[in-house]
Order: sequence, then C-alpha cells, then structure tokens
Amino acid sequence: MREVRFRDPAGTTRTGEWTDDGIEAAGETYDESAVELLPPAEPTKIVCVGLNYRDHADERDSEIPDRPLLFLKPPNTLSGHGDTVTLPPGKERVDHEAELAVVMGEQARNVDADEAMEYVAGFTCMNDVSNRDDQDREQNWVRGKAFDNSAPLGPVLATPDEVPDDAGVELRVNGETRQSSSRSEFIWSVPELLEEVTAYLTLEPGDVLSTGTPAGVAPLEGGDTVEVEVEGVGTLRHDVRED
Amino acid sequence: MREVRFRDPAGTTRTGEWTDDGIEAAGETYDESAVELLPPAEPTKIVCVGLNYRDHADERDSEIPDRPLLFLKPPNTLSGHGDTVTLPPGKERVDHEAELAVVMGEQARNVDADEAMEYVAGFTCMNDVSNRDDQDREQNWVRGKAFDNSAPLGPVLATPDEVPDDAGVELRVNGETRQSSSRSEFIWSVPELLEEVTAYLTLEPGDVLSTGTPAGVAPLEGGDTVEVEVEGVGTLRHDVRED
Repeated sequence: MREVRFRDPAGTTRTGEWTDDGIEAAGETYDESAVELLPPAEPTKIVCVGLNYRDHADERDSEIPDRPLLFLKPPNTLSGHGDTVTLPPGKERVDHEAELAVVMGEQARNVDADEAMEYVAGFTCMNDVSNRDDQDREQNWVRGKAFDNSAPLGPVLATPDEVPDDAGVELRVNGETRQSSSRSEFIWSVPELLEEVTAYLTLEPGDVLSTGTPAGVAPLEGGDTVEVEVEGVGTLRHDVRED
Repeated sequence: MREVRFRDPAGTTRTGEWTDDGIEAAGETYDESAVELLPPAEPTKIVCVGLNYRDHADERDSEIPDRPLLFLKPPNTLSGHGDTVTLPPGKERVDHEAELAVVMGEQARNVDADEAMEYVAGFTCMNDVSNRDDQDREQNWVRGKAFDNSAPLGPVLATPDEVPDDAGVELRVNGETRQSSSRSEFIWSVPELLEEVTAYLTLEPGDVLSTGTPAGVAPLEGGDTVEVEVEGVGTLRHDVRED
C-alpha cells in the first residue's frame, strides 16, 4: 500500500491511498493534479546516515567508518513533492543526494535489529540537499545540512512489502540520470541502523531515518528539476531555484 | 516576568506566572510542590553553540573558531526541572555544561543582529549534558549530544528585562560550584548568534538557542544533584541516575 498526506480542494489535510485510479480518501477519488501533496510524515527529527554506500564513500574521499556516521535534519528542512527548493544564497556548491528514507510507525527505543522492522511504517524518497561550502568547514553539519527546505520528502509512504531488498535508488536532474544504485549496496542495513540509532535516541512515530546516498552526487542550479526514484515507492519530484 | 508551564493537580497543562507567593494561573495560586513543572518551551529543535566562552575553549583544547560552532539537540533530549536524567550506559565520561538558553517568541528567518531581540520571548537555564566518549570520536555530535534527556531546561522563561547583560551563569553538583562565569564573557552575543543561525535555519516560536558553556565542565555520576543558575532566571535542578 502507498499512503499519501494531502490537502484536498477544500483545504482539509487528509490521509489517503495512492492507487492507479488516483488518490482515494474517505470515499472520494482525487486526481493528483487536484490536490496539494504534503510530505508523507511529520517528523520531530530526521536522523541521517552519512556514508552507507561504498561507492559514495570513495567519491567523497572518506574511509568506511567503523560505525554509521550520523547527522540530523530538524523539521525546518522538510519540503514536499512538487515543491520548489530554494538554494542557500552565495554558495559555490549545493549537491543533491538521493536517499531511501524510513518512516517510523511506532516509538522505538533500544530496539534489536532482528525486531526493528516491527517499528517501521514504511519507506519514502528523500533528497538530502547538501551545502558543501559550509559542510566541508564545520564540525557539525548544521549550515551544511540543516538549512531550510533541504529535505524534500515523498511522494508516498510505501509499506515495507512494496519495496524489495534490492530496490533501486536513482536520481535524475532534468531527466538525466546522476545517481543509480541499489539498497543491496548498503554498508549497514535498515535494521542495523535502527538498532544503532535507538541505542541513543528514541524515535517517535513519523520520525525519519534516511539511509545515505550512493555515488554520483553533483551540484544543483536554479531551474533544475530533480527526481528521486526508489523502486516500490515511486518518484519524488521537486524544482530548484536560487534566492 | 517569569513564566512557567506546569501540570496542575488535575493533570491539566497550564501556563502561569512564577511569583514570590507561588505559581499564579487562571485566578489560582499553586505551591511549587503541588504541581509538576514542565520545560518552559516546546522546541521543534534546540540549536546549540559549541564554544562561546573563551575559558571553555581553552579547557577543551579548542581554538576560537572564526564563526560560531553549531550543533543540534532534537526534542527527544528535553527534560525538566525536578526530573531525573539517566546517563547513557557504559560511558566513561558524561559531563555537565551549564548554559543560558534563549527561547524564541516569534518565527525568525534572516534577522539582523540589531533587531534580533524582538523575536526573543526570554531566557531560561539549560544543562547541555554531553557524552564525551562518543562526542570525541564522531564527526557530528549525535550520540554525544542528542541522546534522550540530555537537555534539562527550566525552570522558568524569564523575559529579557529580568536578565542583566552580565548575568552570572553557574553550575553546582551536590552543592559544590563547578562552573561560574558571566554572560559578559560571551565570544558572540545573543543577537549575533541569532543573525548567524537564522541565515540558515528558520527558528520557530518555542525553539531554543543555547549559548554555550563556561569553563569547569566535569563528569556526572549516578546520584548527583545538579543545579544550573542563571542570574535573573533562577535555578534549574535535576537529579542524575545510571541506567
């Protein structure tokens, strides 16, 4: 099942099911173009993984760490399908990073990897938009990763059964493929990441764990259209503008 | 004025005024011991400053950076006056860090330092509890700084007129003074910090900017009672336990 959050034509926020016929909610079927899609979760925090594909570790000249590199994106980073991301002004390089994002269904604290999936509502797509100018010169990636609208998320929340273990993760800019890999390339699996994170931080329902990006990160420019596709989820699309 | 959030004896969450006679809310006066004090704000994020007193930079062997070192504590870190903080298990060293915390009153984005105080609701006390074992070996201080209950906050929100420019910031463990400094020792002022942070991140009403800690950080142990006192705010008190 693929679930969406959206504002209907009357302005009411609803949850519905994304089907081949349109968006079904409360006995009505809406065409996607008739509604405003919202991010499929309302996280209190997004916990991100820095290096989780061997090929991306190589391209950033980073060694594989002995445990997951974690960082945070707070709620001001959220953006949705169909929205326009404004790049932080005056930066030389702001990159896209296609990611498979995990949305929590239950509160999770100190969970073991072998039961971690019981706490997961499903998966969605995220673009971890990254301001390299600042990221490369700060200890904690706050200016680099936590700036407004740097986490487009969506379009749907797909239940785990929809997303194969080797799901493709791809990103296109203006139709041209820039990143293309698979969940089978992960250094740490989703359950392993959840065990590590929840040993320190309680994850709340709606919180997001984003699982890192594959090779191929590259700069964005004003006017670009970005598509992040995760097999089984669908395609998150957003535009880019300069301030 | 000093404002508190609390649960009254009927379990209703209220906002009241902290006076010499007790807590005044909706025509009633409550004794502090009769209510459960809550953190005086409900932040979507706590933006923290790493090194903002020259003496603490020295003791951590850190150079004064050319701009504020920022990091994040998400909402799972919140704890309140009178609560008991559980230390993360199996760590050699978990330190206290007394801080003056700023609570936002208005949404703030791209504010200039000279008008930044217009967006501030007031000040409170925070203990930025810090797990050095992990902080010292991770790029982003997530395990080190963002673990559950690592941000005791309170007891009141004092309006800016209550807190002098050279307000004392002090921390005691079991009655013994460990940190004692003053806001006049800041490297960056509150308005300068707000200008820097809001150039990247929108701060929402209730969000917290914590302004760094003075020299004297030291380890906590199970059974300790911690008091953070900021002149003009009052004293935040919490206990510490081991898991």
